[in-house]
Amino acid sequence: VNPLTATEPLALERDVQAEPDTRGVPIDDVGIRGLRYPLPVSCRDGQAQPVVATVELAVSLSAKRRGTHMSRFVETLDDWSGEPLDGARMLAMTTDIAARLDSGQARASIGFTLFLQRRAPVSGLPSKLGIDCRFDATVAPSERRLTVGVRVPVTSLCPCSKEISDYGAHNQRGYVAIDASVDPAVHLALEDLIDVAEASGSAPIYPLLKRVDERFVTMQAYDAPAFVEDVVREVALELRGDQRLLGFAVEAENHESIHDHSAVASVRWQRET
Amino acid sequence: VNPLTATEPLALERDVQAEPDTRGVPIDDVGIRGLRYPLPVSCRDGQAQPVVATVELAVSLSAKRRGTHMSRFVETLDDWSGEPLDGARMLAMTTDIAARLDSGQARASIGFTLFLQRRAPVSGLPSKLGIDCRFDATVAPSERRLTVGVRVPVTSLCPCSKEISDYGAHNQRGYVAIDASVDPAVHLALEDLIDVAEASGSAPIYPLLKRVDERFVTMQAYDAPAFVEDVVREVALELRGDQRLLGFAVEAENHESIHDHSAVASVRWQRET
Amino acid sequence: VNPLTATEPLALERDVQAEPDTRGVPIDDVGIRGLRYPLPVSCRDGQAQPVVATVELAVSLSAKRRGTHMSRFVETLDDWSGEPLDGARMLAMTTDIAARLDSGQARASIGFTLFLQRRAPVSGLPSKLGIDCRFDATVAPSERRLTVGVRVPVTSLCPCSKEISDYGAHNQRGYVAIDASVDPAVHLALEDLIDVAEASGSAPIYPLLKRVDERFVTMQAYDAPAFVEDVVREVALELRGDQRLLGFAVEAENHESIHDHSAVASVRWQRET
Amino acid sequence: VNPLTATEPLALERDVQAEPDTRGVPIDDVGIRGLRYPLPVSCRDGQAQPVVATVELAVSLSAKRRGTHMSRFVETLDDWSGEPLDGARMLAMTTDIAARLDSGQARASIGFTLFLQRRAPVSGLPSKLGIDCRFDATVAPSERRLTVGVRVPVTSLCPCSKEISDYGAHNQRGYVAIDASVDPAVHLALEDLIDVAEASGSAPIYPLLKRVDERFVTMQAYDAPAFVEDVVREVALELRGDQRLLGFAVEAENHESIHDHSAVASVRWQRET
Repeated sequence: VNPLTATEPLALERDVQAEPDTRGVPIDDVGIRGLRYPLPVSCRDGQAQPVVATVELAVSLSAKRRGTHMSRFVETLDDWSGEPLDGARMLAMTTDIAARLDSGQARASIGFTLFLQRRAPVSGLPSKLGIDCRFDATVAPSERRLTVGVRVPVTSLCPCSKEISDYGAHNQRGYVAIDASVDPAVHLALEDLIDVAEASGSAPIYPLLKRVDERFVTMQAYDAPAFVEDVVREVALELRGDQRLLGFAVEAENHESIHDHSAVASVRWQRET
Repeated sequence: VNPLTATEPLALERDVQAEPDTRGVPIDDVGIRGLRYPLPVSCRDGQAQPVVATVELAVSLSAKRRGTHMSRFVETLDDWSGEPLDGARMLAMTTDIAARLDSGQARASIGFTLFLQRRAPVSGLPSKLGIDCRFDATVAPSERRLTVGVRVPVTSLCPCSKEISDYGAHNQRGYVAIDASVDPAVHLALEDLIDVAEASGSAPIYPLLKRVDERFVTMQAYDAPAFVEDVVREVALELRGDQRLLGFAVEAENHESIHDHSAVASVRWQRET
Repeated sequence: VNPLTATEPLALERDVQAEPDTRGVPIDDVGIRGLRYPLPVSCRDGQAQPVVATVELAVSLSAKRRGTHMSRFVETLDDWSGEPLDGARMLAMTTDIAARLDSGQARASIGFTLFLQRRAPVSGLPSKLGIDCRFDATVAPSERRLTVGVRVPVTSLCPCSKEISDYGAHNQRGYVAIDASVDPAVHLALEDLIDVAEASGSAPIYPLLKRVDERFVTMQAYDAPAFVEDVVREVALELRGDQRLLGFAVEAENHESIHDHSAVASVRWQRET
Repeated sequence: VNPLTATEPLALERDVQAEPDTRGVPIDDVGIRGLRYPLPVSCRDGQAQPVVATVELAVSLSAKRRGTHMSRFVETLDDWSGEPLDGARMLAMTTDIAARLDSGQARASIGFTLFLQRRAPVSGLPSKLGIDCRFDATVAPSERRLTVGVRVPVTSLCPCSKEISDYGAHNQRGYVAIDASVDPAVHLALEDLIDVAEASGSAPIYPLLKRVDERFVTMQAYDAPAFVEDVVREVALELRGDQRLLGFAVEAENHESIHDHSAVASVRWQRET
């Protein structure tokens, strides 16, 4: 018998995590961060797409318990990683974490890159655009909250630069990030948010553009100049009208081509109840 | 006359940012992000230390105005970058931003690495340890808020691993991050928070250790095992007693040596008033 | 007819990239970087694993040509992204890039995270460990070169700390990176390199460890202390004996638990011919 | 006497690093990486600027020695951090590292952000632009090599997009990186390379631009379109003529505004001797 692999001795050892704690400090969140894991995600068309997730899982810990059981987070994730993830499963997994970790409150954040087929606007040539997405869920006795997030690259062209210049206008890559608070009882596809974000810039972004396409997006952007302020307002107007949302935060960040820093704008909104 | 450098024509152009907006969407934050700038920071000993800051500045924007004046953020920062920064100046600069940008609310975040002299625990040899710090200020008609933040590297040694093993115990580098909400009327040095964070791990971290020092910190860590839960509780107990703080968030993150992900714990606390 | 989508006008425009260049400066590499793309990768067991690749593709450009055709890189990648990637396909795709871009030399680098099933050493519980891998290929009239790279997390325990301390020893997460130059005519699985790297540390790393497993790896690491120098030497000895390799570079980097910086060692080696 | 702080016991312990090694594997590089340290750097105007350096230091290690002395790297750096760094001091410090570490070969890389005063092109308003720079030195019995590196942000405007579009042209932020191999006997200021890089884009970048300046740089960029291929060729032509250089590598990377990936070109060149 290899003494290293015998499990007996541990029965005699103290289970340090399970010890009582007397310091009187409850812990809001304790868990794991930065775990990379492969799992499938549900797409709007009903297909499942394999993604590489970066995962953060946590529970609250009573003031009376010294430590949580870190290994159970990974066990739970592994158990749930077989079926395609969507908002409903995200909440169900988070509920399971609370139960398995014997905690009143659990939280899960799962980020990944989703790839969407894009066709160049004139040539129609196909390519895949990666878009950073995330689900965040919180489950507690009194609440179940779900946030769906996307971060979409766009081209933005400066209205001021266009107006004040005899020719040309500075433009750049920007990112439009939406975090939407969703009613757990309804379904919201990631692609629904991506569409809104993508429409808010001066022009969409494509991995593959031939010369006819490049001409098209160049003039499309020049025809639709937008400040970061304009971008977030357009998104806000659109999202306010989506009754599935309980609220949202939208942020536009331009990697300014005339500076080595970004211009940023954000709007936060809660539906009145 | 070079037509490019003549300023006259612009008088005829529309000032697009200054135009009215009719969409009815107020903007919570609009400004700049990721600007790197050199400036001095006040240290506890009264000295000023030159740092390289990463700066984010923003104002709120009324629903009636189309855009803000991005260049004024940089002008204001440049004007304030001559004198050593501390909490009081941070609030004063943020107040100035609100005024110059003609906005009811302004926000500033300035992050930098502060270097502190460290002496190895036995040999006494000196070296400098860089610690990430930040000031965040918000100024509005009804409020002035200041947050002081530090992120301190420590060694942490796992109590469970020590208890269940016949010899050895896994340990790793961890980071203890404190964000302290400070009464604007009182002074809190960055080093005051750094001291609290550094004392909460199993052993401090030093850039320079000779063999006698390495022996010391190895045994010091083995003698003081601490979960991330223990670390944040120790910090929380200490900070609750500091009457200058209105509240705080503390987070401990261990870059686990036995995993390729982190263990994390956090506590948030507000003083009752 | 939408003038924006008509392709006719472009026939009248100059194709600027295709213009001759008179500056007399040949370009070593021109292409794309940072493109994220989904594709399958071949595993040792014959299965294909879907991964998210980060892609860099380039060709050399004659002194006489002004520009390359950037869109053809993405077109080629998209065409090759349907079948599982391995070294042979990597070289074939790079050869295709040279042909389609009309260049004498092409280069491709594809990095991704491969997930391998791991079983905890005592409990046997399963989980998946992500390991960063890459293929680099260069194709020119006179050469075809293929490099296979892996970067594997391990636990490392300091021999000096163990020796000089009455108890305990500092340990930490480290990464062992191998870049192996491979004979294009033979097959080398990524997992073959991962096995060598993983065996070189003080203990392997697992996403999921129960208490019996944590006891095991704690003592396993204490029993096998290794400096970064030891790690790269062990890997070097092992790889020299693998006749499929024409050479290699191995680097071990420890995220020191007693410092806020890394310890690093590397060995480069070429087989004599 | 505190047993933890007594230095005596160590005399009895083995100095594990100093032990002989019998595996027959010489180590190319062993040392430290990612150490952040404050130090002054010499500017072209004779002033010294305080910077925050990220430092990598290494030596080669004979096949016969088990380990190097990691602490001596930090000691040496601390000793040299008092006086302004330039190429000559970089080589002298690296020579000192080889001596103190008792090694035939030493290597040092020091990266930092240098801030240069910029005046907006029309309004003349001042601000500071941070530019990433680095020194790399290698010292061995038969050689002393020094590389000076800069990475400069610029605006680049696409010649193809301008040509094929009826109006507008996509443009973006780009970075021009030069690594210049310098004759150790001559002096080359970082600013000399920065000037060359900055002149190669479509327009320079400024932290602070008023509307008259924005008009200026918008039209300046439209008047000087440049592919990444053009940028590196212009730099190459300029640098070939600088007799202080023994060779160089130049790379231009555009963060394409119409894609979510970069366009990149590079030229490497060695002076014939």
